[in-house]
Amino acid sequence: MSRSALSDEAAALDAADRLRAKRDAFILDDVIYLDGNSLGALPRAVPPRLAEVVAREWGELRIRSWEESGWWTAPERIGDRVGRLVGAAPGQVVVGDSTSVNVFKAVVAAVRIAQERGAHRDQILVDEATFPTDGYIAESAARMTGCTLRPVAAGDVPGAVGARTAVALVNHVDYRTGRLHDLPGITAAVHAAGGLVVWDLCHSAGALPVGLDAHGVDLAVGCTYKYLNGGPGAPAYLYVARAHQPRFDSPLPGWNSHADPFGMASAYTPAEGSARGRVGTPDILSMLALEAALEVWDDVTIEDVRAKSLALTDFFLRCVEDHVPAGRVQSVTPAAHTERGSQVALRCADAGEVMAELTRRGVVGDFRRPDVLRFGFTPLYTGFAEVERAARVLADVLPKEG
Amino acid sequence: MSRSALSDEAAALDAADRLRAKRDAFILDDVIYLDGNSLGALPRAVPPRLAEVVAREWGELRIRSWEESGWWTAPERIGDRVGRLVGAAPGQVVVGDSTSVNVFKAVVAAVRIAQERGAHRDQILVDEATFPTDGYIAESAARMTGCTLRPVAAGDVPGAVGARTAVALVNHVDYRTGRLHDLPGITAAVHAAGGLVVWDLCHSAGALPVGLDAHGVDLAVGCTYKYLNGGPGAPAYLYVARAHQPRFDSPLPGWNSHADPFGMASAYTPAEGSARGRVGTPDILSMLALEAALEVWDDVTIEDVRAKSLALTDFFLRCVEDHVPAGRVQSVTPAAHTERGSQVALRCADAGEVMAELTRRGVVGDFRRPDVLRFGFTPLYTGFAEVERAARVLADVLPKEG
Repeated sequence: MSRSALSDEAAALDAADRLRAKRDAFILDDVIYLDGNSLGALPRAVPPRLAEVVAREWGELRIRSWEESGWWTAPERIGDRVGRLVGAAPGQVVVGDSTSVNVFKAVVAAVRIAQERGAHRDQILVDEATFPTDGYIAESAARMTGCTLRPVAAGDVPGAVGARTAVALVNHVDYRTGRLHDLPGITAAVHAAGGLVVWDLCHSAGALPVGLDAHGVDLAVGCTYKYLNGGPGAPAYLYVARAHQPRFDSPLPGWNSHADPFGMASAYTPAEGSARGRVGTPDILSMLALEAALEVWDDVTIEDVRAKSLALTDFFLRCVEDHVPAGRVQSVTPAAHTERGSQVALRCADAGEVMAELTRRGVVGDFRRPDVLRFGFTPLYTGFAEVERAARVLADVLPKEG
Repeated sequence: MSRSALSDEAAALDAADRLRAKRDAFILDDVIYLDGNSLGALPRAVPPRLAEVVAREWGELRIRSWEESGWWTAPERIGDRVGRLVGAAPGQVVVGDSTSVNVFKAVVAAVRIAQERGAHRDQILVDEATFPTDGYIAESAARMTGCTLRPVAAGDVPGAVGARTAVALVNHVDYRTGRLHDLPGITAAVHAAGGLVVWDLCHSAGALPVGLDAHGVDLAVGCTYKYLNGGPGAPAYLYVARAHQPRFDSPLPGWNSHADPFGMASAYTPAEGSARGRVGTPDILSMLALEAALEVWDDVTIEDVRAKSLALTDFFLRCVEDHVPAGRVQSVTPAAHTERGSQVALRCADAGEVMAELTRRGVVGDFRRPDVLRFGFTPLYTGFAEVERAARVLADVLPKEG
């Protein structure tokens, strides 16, 4: 197919795109930004809201804002907004801390629940291709709960679980390859073995339906600065299924998770509900920036987002196949829709230099050592014409055959 | 002394105040804000800087800002700024997470170092009047390291330490009474017993000299939203004395504390230096707001701040004694300068209602159950005339004798 035919097709796809108008909710420019899976673009609603939070809520009301501006309840309120996007009914998601800290809370608490079922449950399974922090934190959780850590491929978890399984910690989408793991199937398999599962949703929340409640997930964590566009280092979140909440026994029982935080009691009594997952004073500036960023989702369904995401990645793969001479790059992202997240990872020679040159030419993705170009497709603001152009620039940049 | 004499004295004290001009660095109004020890007022430098971070660094540079805008190194860079205010040479303080999370890192890591000296060191001493979160977190740290938790009054720590002491966790200034504890003496006593000490500086940093290095403190934590004016829920900090850094073994070894974070290795190798205290992706918006807030300290010495702080609390106590009929309130803050932080806590009947009425009349402090009015004095922006007026309003508000 000629380049112009793909350009025409891109134009037609853009014209038919039901989410096309959403792009205006973001501040963008001529850069083709395919790194929203690392740091989402700036939603237009954020700057004025953050200015108001600073000038009015902090600057004028000061301490009164904890009550009058709803600061104190922000972690649960914003948690519910995130919950809607990952299929969690209200009252189960709380926002705060980093993903790493939430992994620690989730894994330790899950081990404790599993060991109530049987003290012999002393193994934590971890996705062996996990984003590193999950593995490091799971290792610490294992060490501090007397468990052993067992790395296995996510797809092999169903075959690896058994009577000693306490918890399996699995990524919904692999950060490197973009492979989407079978959340319903793995969850069911861990449950059949009597264990609990903790899902890391960093690379799926806001990109595809997760269905935490529908699939009976036990606990989950995720960040909010990728497809949720919450800003650099925006607070992460923790999901604890309602059924587990009464037994959620946090390793980080800070005063914000106390049943009566202003009672200042020396004895700890945990709060009910998702507030039990809180720790210290919430980071209000970042949290309210996130809340403003989430407004863009109010009239969007995650099913529409998923449909466009798959159309974008399909189209990118076709454009790459068309524009890039055979053999120059190799996709490590699964072709099957059921196994694909919202990114395309291409392996190539000199990937670091290729990505640096792409960036210079206005196509921004990620380089993941040693040899992966990672392109994220954010359906709320990425268009098909951009995708086609990105593939064209990639073809220009790739080293010519020696 | 007559009210007008104290007013005249206040005017003279304000005229002679070397820090008086600093008030202009904050956004204030007619409210007498004596709650800067709970949430510091808004520094004028913050709104424009935060707007720039959002619009330019996030909005335009996006992912490139991790490197080009210095986001990645912000925790150590801002940590050094905080370090200067608490007597820590560069490279020992890192900013991030909440105080509660940092208490967990500090206490667990301190236990591990202490147990290298002897496995029999299995007690964690905790200030029995501590702000609750420290006690809750220390209890979790004890549970997860096989230690027992032993609450003792801060002043009794020197007599309570012994061969089984692993760690003592003590508040530099008591959040309720404003009592300043003897950091050099307690530190020396814990060291003499072979243990480590973790200081919570929440109510002293930015109010008085701390001298972490000078007094050989092992580890310390603190928040930045009180006297450091970092904003609601601003990131906290962790100090690990240089000598301990090689053995600092974090219970929260997130990817940001890895020696080569972008190597994405599955095995954890800790970074050198203060970065070892990092966990997950730093919360950039709040962190850079804090950095702007700290600029106000550039030409201020903590000794000047302390001198004014003591003058303010002395003067407030005199005004209260003069204006308020005897017996209506009782100060629970020590009279001796060596034992006083930067607040005055007054016990009185119906303290909750009294504080509500004070707030309605434009004098903002804190109510701490069951019967304490807490007034914080922030030398950078509180003046003596305000202090005198606050005492006068207090006298008007207190219930008249039955």
